[in-house]
Amino acid sequence: MREVYIVGVGMTKFGKFLERSVDDLGSEAVLKAIKDAGTITQRDIQTAYVGEMATGVISGQPTVVGQTVLAQAGITSIPIVNVEDACATSSAAFREAWITVGAGLYDVALALGVEKLYTTDQGISTEALSGGKLEGRHGQIPAAHWAMIAKLYMEKYGVSKETIAQVSVKNRHNAHYNPLSQYRDLITLEQVLSSRMVADPLTLFQCCPIGDGAAAAILCSKDGLKKLGFSKAPITVAWCALASGTYEPLRDLLINGEIVRSSREAYKATGLEPKDIDIAEVHDCFSIAEYLRCESLGLCGRGEYGRLLKEGKWNIGGELPVNPSGGLLSKGHPTGATGVAQVVEVVRQMRGEAEPERQLKDVMVGLTHCSGGLASRDTAAGSVIILKNDGGPR
Amino acid sequence: MREVYIVGVGMTKFGKFLERSVDDLGSEAVLKAIKDAGTITQRDIQTAYVGEMATGVISGQPTVVGQTVLAQAGITSIPIVNVEDACATSSAAFREAWITVGAGLYDVALALGVEKLYTTDQGISTEALSGGKLEGRHGQIPAAHWAMIAKLYMEKYGVSKETIAQVSVKNRHNAHYNPLSQYRDLITLEQVLSSRMVADPLTLFQCCPIGDGAAAAILCSKDGLKKLGFSKAPITVAWCALASGTYEPLRDLLINGEIVRSSREAYKATGLEPKDIDIAEVHDCFSIAEYLRCESLGLCGRGEYGRLLKEGKWNIGGELPVNPSGGLLSKGHPTGATGVAQVVEVVRQMRGEAEPERQLKDVMVGLTHCSGGLASRDTAAGSVIILKNDGGPR
Repeated sequence: MREVYIVGVGMTKFGKFLERSVDDLGSEAVLKAIKDAGTITQRDIQTAYVGEMATGVISGQPTVVGQTVLAQAGITSIPIVNVEDACATSSAAFREAWITVGAGLYDVALALGVEKLYTTDQGISTEALSGGKLEGRHGQIPAAHWAMIAKLYMEKYGVSKETIAQVSVKNRHNAHYNPLSQYRDLITLEQVLSSRMVADPLTLFQCCPIGDGAAAAILCSKDGLKKLGFSKAPITVAWCALASGTYEPLRDLLINGEIVRSSREAYKATGLEPKDIDIAEVHDCFSIAEYLRCESLGLCGRGEYGRLLKEGKWNIGGELPVNPSGGLLSKGHPTGATGVAQVVEVVRQMRGEAEPERQLKDVMVGLTHCSGGLASRDTAAGSVIILKNDGGPR
Repeated sequence: MREVYIVGVGMTKFGKFLERSVDDLGSEAVLKAIKDAGTITQRDIQTAYVGEMATGVISGQPTVVGQTVLAQAGITSIPIVNVEDACATSSAAFREAWITVGAGLYDVALALGVEKLYTTDQGISTEALSGGKLEGRHGQIPAAHWAMIAKLYMEKYGVSKETIAQVSVKNRHNAHYNPLSQYRDLITLEQVLSSRMVADPLTLFQCCPIGDGAAAAILCSKDGLKKLGFSKAPITVAWCALASGTYEPLRDLLINGEIVRSSREAYKATGLEPKDIDIAEVHDCFSIAEYLRCESLGLCGRGEYGRLLKEGKWNIGGELPVNPSGGLLSKGHPTGATGVAQVVEVVRQMRGEAEPERQLKDVMVGLTHCSGGLASRDTAAGSVIILKNDGGPR
């Protein structure tokens, strides 16, 4: 595998956009990433991997979504592969782009994540976000699943519902300064706790919203950099890991096996440890999920996330900021877009391009994590991507 | 890119199986491929790419289909990526498996194609096979699209409807000897022409059927072969090309741009030419499609397919047998399964494992082709895979 670098990133604002199509959202992100790279045009993109999950359910187009989105962005003829891995959908697409450039097949690859979940028919949106009819049949929609986990976590580790809800306050604070976030109004712990109950103990503000959006990244080899040049310091893709897992209901519901496996692979491959990480964008689909994700990633010991949250470790300005973008809870979670959107955030933080109020200092190593699947089928996919801000190739 | 070899293949019978699920079909193909490889178990599969297109529409599971299928086959924990590219879906999955082994990330990868299209609700099956609601809204379902092409082809090249229908007779003859085919009863030209009209001039027997099935292949590096051994001569994956195209309605409807591009790439990369090919499995979704596919692949000149068909060039025993498996028209076309099923056929012909009546002689070079997309969106994906029977690594 050759070294692979990120040379351009772009994303749309996340939100509820009834008037915007998947093609419209996706092409905006692609054109922004090309503009961000500075030295390339559509014609320089040699292959593309496109992640989306729900376009078949939402828009009635179950096939070749990447091809139609990219045609709108002026990109045709090239190999385009549509990738789906639940909430890790565009992380998996990003990883395939990394592999194909790393293999030496192409010098410039595009990774796009795009999703449109918001419609006037909330039933359809819920079906899409819940991974289809199966979850509904089992009554095991994501909110119900995570509510059970929250109860178990609270009992096992003696953590209060207030401490769990604090994740939403932190992430909304971060989103307040991120103009691309779906929700930006500051909220207090009282507001989080008194928002409508969705699945006890998870209130509305502890559940990620339904929304639309897209994010794109352009990956490039050293040869590509030499040929095309670059306008900003390339960010190194240190490793992309992907694993499968089960919800292991009869074993341990409070750890995500697919995260343990993918993060161990990524740490081993890069020689890095959790203590080396300067920024983590993790899959906080529910407040309690941020606890489990970070503990599964080894960012802290099991049962410790809440205490360290109260101490400010995960805040912007803290020892290891988690979800400085606002996370899924506030930035939003258009499913297929999330994985690449996390990469966009880490790249911008590394370049010093975040808004001043949420810009981190000296971001050298960043980690992104996505997990998803079907609790009703006891199946999950989990990805970990590690990026390094090391000045690019020498 | 390292050399990559196929060490095991397996597929289900194609057909209409109301009682069988996607998991059931997919896991059968996987276990057969593992058994065929002879020296490995589920635990040796290090990563998997799974192609399916319609499970969201048909079975209400739009996500992580590969993970649930493979769990039933006893394969968990590993990276599993779901891939979709219309009718080229599992060709694209196979190609990703080739890239990741070629890149050196894994020694053993699984490519699986699986689809279930047949339900008691024909409307749902048609929606899934037509690529969603969009095609129906435009009235441009595949049969209507290809009927227009047939009329244009007949007029431009002075070819009769009888000559076009002859493809169905040839492919059914081949399928007659293939126990995995969906339809096997021999049919005459008169029967093809007098079968129910679907879209003039395409009668029922000139349209591929709705059906269910799965096919799997196991890809392996030279290092993997050394470590795991192999029971049958490995088949070399010479190249996998993928391209996008449009139906180019204002230019030339009688050539498929995505096939021209992907086949040119494959010929250039391998140094092979159409005259070197001993077997071609091409995407004969309609009788007329076999004409366009083969002419776009450069297997003959434009407008020449019918004449050569009448001369027997494409028959088993002819100069270049096309679709000795029976093709989509008779073997069947469970969308996501087709690409890998073509690979299974070529591998078995190369090994001399086909049924005696349809076994080809001295198959050294094989080509598979799949194309698909949405005519209503003017978008297509096309893949070309070239396999070589050269005794494996030395």
